Amino acid sequence: MRTLIQDVTVITLDDQNRILQHAGIAIDGQTICAVGEVPPTFIPEAIISGEEMVALPAFFNAHTHTAMTLERGWAEDLPFERWLNEKIWVAESALEEEDVYWGAALAAAEMIRGGIVGFADHYFWMDQVARVVETSGMKANLAWCHFGLKSEQELGRKSFEDTVAFVERWDGAAGGRIFTSMGPHSPYMDSPAVLRRFAEEAQRLGVGVHLHLSESARQVQDSLKQYGKTPVAHVASTGLFDLPRSALVAHCNVLQEADFAILAEKGVHVAHTPKTYQKLAMQMPPILEMLRRKVHVALGTDGPASNSDLNMLEIMRLAGLYQKGLAADATALPVMDLLRLATQAPASAIGFSESGVLAPGRPADLILLDTTAPHWLPRHDLAAGIVYTSHPGDIAYVWCNGQLLYQQGEFLTLDYKRIRFEAERRAFRMVGKSMHTMRITPRTE
Amino acid sequence: MRTLIQDVTVITLDDQNRILQHAGIAIDGQTICAVGEVPPTFIPEAIISGEEMVALPAFFNAHTHTAMTLERGWAEDLPFERWLNEKIWVAESALEEEDVYWGAALAAAEMIRGGIVGFADHYFWMDQVARVVETSGMKANLAWCHFGLKSEQELGRKSFEDTVAFVERWDGAAGGRIFTSMGPHSPYMDSPAVLRRFAEEAQRLGVGVHLHLSESARQVQDSLKQYGKTPVAHVASTGLFDLPRSALVAHCNVLQEADFAILAEKGVHVAHTPKTYQKLAMQMPPILEMLRRKVHVALGTDGPASNSDLNMLEIMRLAGLYQKGLAADATALPVMDLLRLATQAPASAIGFSESGVLAPGRPADLILLDTTAPHWLPRHDLAAGIVYTSHPGDIAYVWCNGQLLYQQGEFLTLDYKRIRFEAERRAFRMVGKSMHTMRITPRTE
Repeated sequence: MRTLIQDVTVITLDDQNRILQHAGIAIDGQTICAVGEVPPTFIPEAIISGEEMVALPAFFNAHTHTAMTLERGWAEDLPFERWLNEKIWVAESALEEEDVYWGAALAAAEMIRGGIVGFADHYFWMDQVARVVETSGMKANLAWCHFGLKSEQELGRKSFEDTVAFVERWDGAAGGRIFTSMGPHSPYMDSPAVLRRFAEEAQRLGVGVHLHLSESARQVQDSLKQYGKTPVAHVASTGLFDLPRSALVAHCNVLQEADFAILAEKGVHVAHTPKTYQKLAMQMPPILEMLRRKVHVALGTDGPASNSDLNMLEIMRLAGLYQKGLAADATALPVMDLLRLATQAPASAIGFSESGVLAPGRPADLILLDTTAPHWLPRHDLAAGIVYTSHPGDIAYVWCNGQLLYQQGEFLTLDYKRIRFEAERRAFRMVGKSMHTMRITPRTE
Repeated sequence: MRTLIQDVTVITLDDQNRILQHAGIAIDGQTICAVGEVPPTFIPEAIISGEEMVALPAFFNAHTHTAMTLERGWAEDLPFERWLNEKIWVAESALEEEDVYWGAALAAAEMIRGGIVGFADHYFWMDQVARVVETSGMKANLAWCHFGLKSEQELGRKSFEDTVAFVERWDGAAGGRIFTSMGPHSPYMDSPAVLRRFAEEAQRLGVGVHLHLSESARQVQDSLKQYGKTPVAHVASTGLFDLPRSALVAHCNVLQEADFAILAEKGVHVAHTPKTYQKLAMQMPPILEMLRRKVHVALGTDGPASNSDLNMLEIMRLAGLYQKGLAADATALPVMDLLRLATQAPASAIGFSESGVLAPGRPADLILLDTTAPHWLPRHDLAAGIVYTSHPGDIAYVWCNGQLLYQQGEFLTLDYKRIRFEAERRAFRMVGKSMHTMRITPRTE
């Protein structure tokens, strides 16, 4: 399929931060073949007007648990321990394999509508998520979560061998749109022996790892007591930071001095999910210091049980606003940096390092935003408009690998009506509500 | 006009926090006449389906500068002094009276689309804003900003007498939808003698005051040096906190111990605009402590030059998320409190104290949100959905005083196409851009 986008403003996110006016974008198959001037030899099969629109590389989401959409709004304004023990684990005790499919499908719809085309997911029954990635046309890096200290085999919590088998089964699938990673939950839920075994298997299979790391001062204290090392140094000692693909670690809320150098030297990608930290009153990770020390930081949403939604526009805003206030420096994390942290950085973190720039030869992972709503006007600075004022509803077109996934409110690869019926029905079943107590009866026509 | 909303979920925000399912709402003229069961004697002229919608009292905005929409996106990621001196004042030096009309009209469109029906405005050439309020059907409390230390008469910066005359001219206009206030800029831009004269005139005319107060540690230090009092105590000593209507003060970023008691005892309303504080790296006001000490706090957006937009959904979210993190307490500012801070609290702060509850006899100031987008599902908790996930684009219907202002993307009282053309044209002229350098040519068909 050859598509021409005409007369559009293009935020290229290239090395020169070029913003092109009244430009064209040509897409041939999975690839962008021209940006700016489109040669007359390019004969499009589809033409889209970019008038009053702005084109941007599509967003990637560095860390989430997609099927936890089913628990969105189920546990609000609670302290972390009560949130987890009284609500989340109770609901998840009723989780069935097919729930994961519909929860992930709902997440796919939400992400696509919000301009996210790729994500790193970490949960159970991940074959179901892989099926959603296949059919939705998205890109993903999938890890089957492994708890090495608790009873295995329950509720999709598979044995070590089973989660490794998932990696073998799906890595490189869907025409290269799916990467997989080893998925130990964290150094506090998996023993050092298990972490080392994951490192060996990852070496054998040529993949990376995705885990939670250093989320609280308590975890750091416990790790120092148990292993004589910070969680970062402890994980580094297991070999998980020396894999064929860079490691992806979520959070790093609490770091000690030596941790920055380890993360930077090992090329570890740190997923930063600020809404979850604020909502659950967790310590905010030192991302300005990480960035200063050349640690790879990438934005993510975390799962909707903690984060409420999967909205990278808001995540950029929250990350930037918080850091400006914290640093007492209004110049901290300026607009173009935030756009990179939500596009190039997470794309690279999850294995799609060619994405995140609009230039010839790059994958056609891009979005168009409609700039006619009042919050965009006057259009002094469209990049700032995206970061500081825009919403998922502004996103008009979404392409992933050259395939159009979303167009003016319509999902082209998903049956959204069925998804919302199934996801809501299953979510209510999980938490023990009957259809009669549903707040709103879903419309199924 | 008699309107019936059928089969809707109603977040009443009444004293019992009642949420009604499959309820009706009857509107007769300017007033809600039934919520829940609608008596069969009510014969509607218009019927609206509330299926898959949630009804909420409309938002009010406790502090803004509407015409500064024209400077949205004009000064990003800059320190406060450079933001003000190099960008905002330079642009405003080219401000013309009619610009204020079109800037305020753009703000009205943005606010209505976002479910805000009333606002407190503080700027120049306020007759133009009053005209916008009249025609848009909104409610407002308008103050003509007065600088008592600088040269007067320039650029809509009128003499003391002229700003007082504005109050007389418009208070109670538009069928009671317009209140006015005295508008000294602040105790650092108006002398004590001027503040006392404003207090005398407010007593004579039976109105209140709206001013900026105690925005930085520097202001507090300067005030202590110059007057031997904090800004709060200094303004209290001028009589401005003993007026016929409660005072409205913006910000109070920095308070000393005795200030809390003064604000509480005098019934002062403090407008809290968290996005501006973060964006300009200002100190965050101690609102949890204010609320604990029974100070009236109300949420607002501030002007779009600093805040980028006029989105109370986001303001609720930012206020709540920040305070949870700051207090290290995930239970701080729970959902129902945030909803009140964005509805009842600012309505009361600007003179419309009957608004903010959906109950018989209350003004018909309400909105319906469509809950079918992915970020709402599953609908475990619609109130949390509003606070933590929703966007202006979810707002489907907006009523103010019983008049339908907005319906499914259409503005019923505003000529939005003309507004966006004029606002953008004038904004570009102000900052010295010609039409040729406009990033996007507005479509005017």
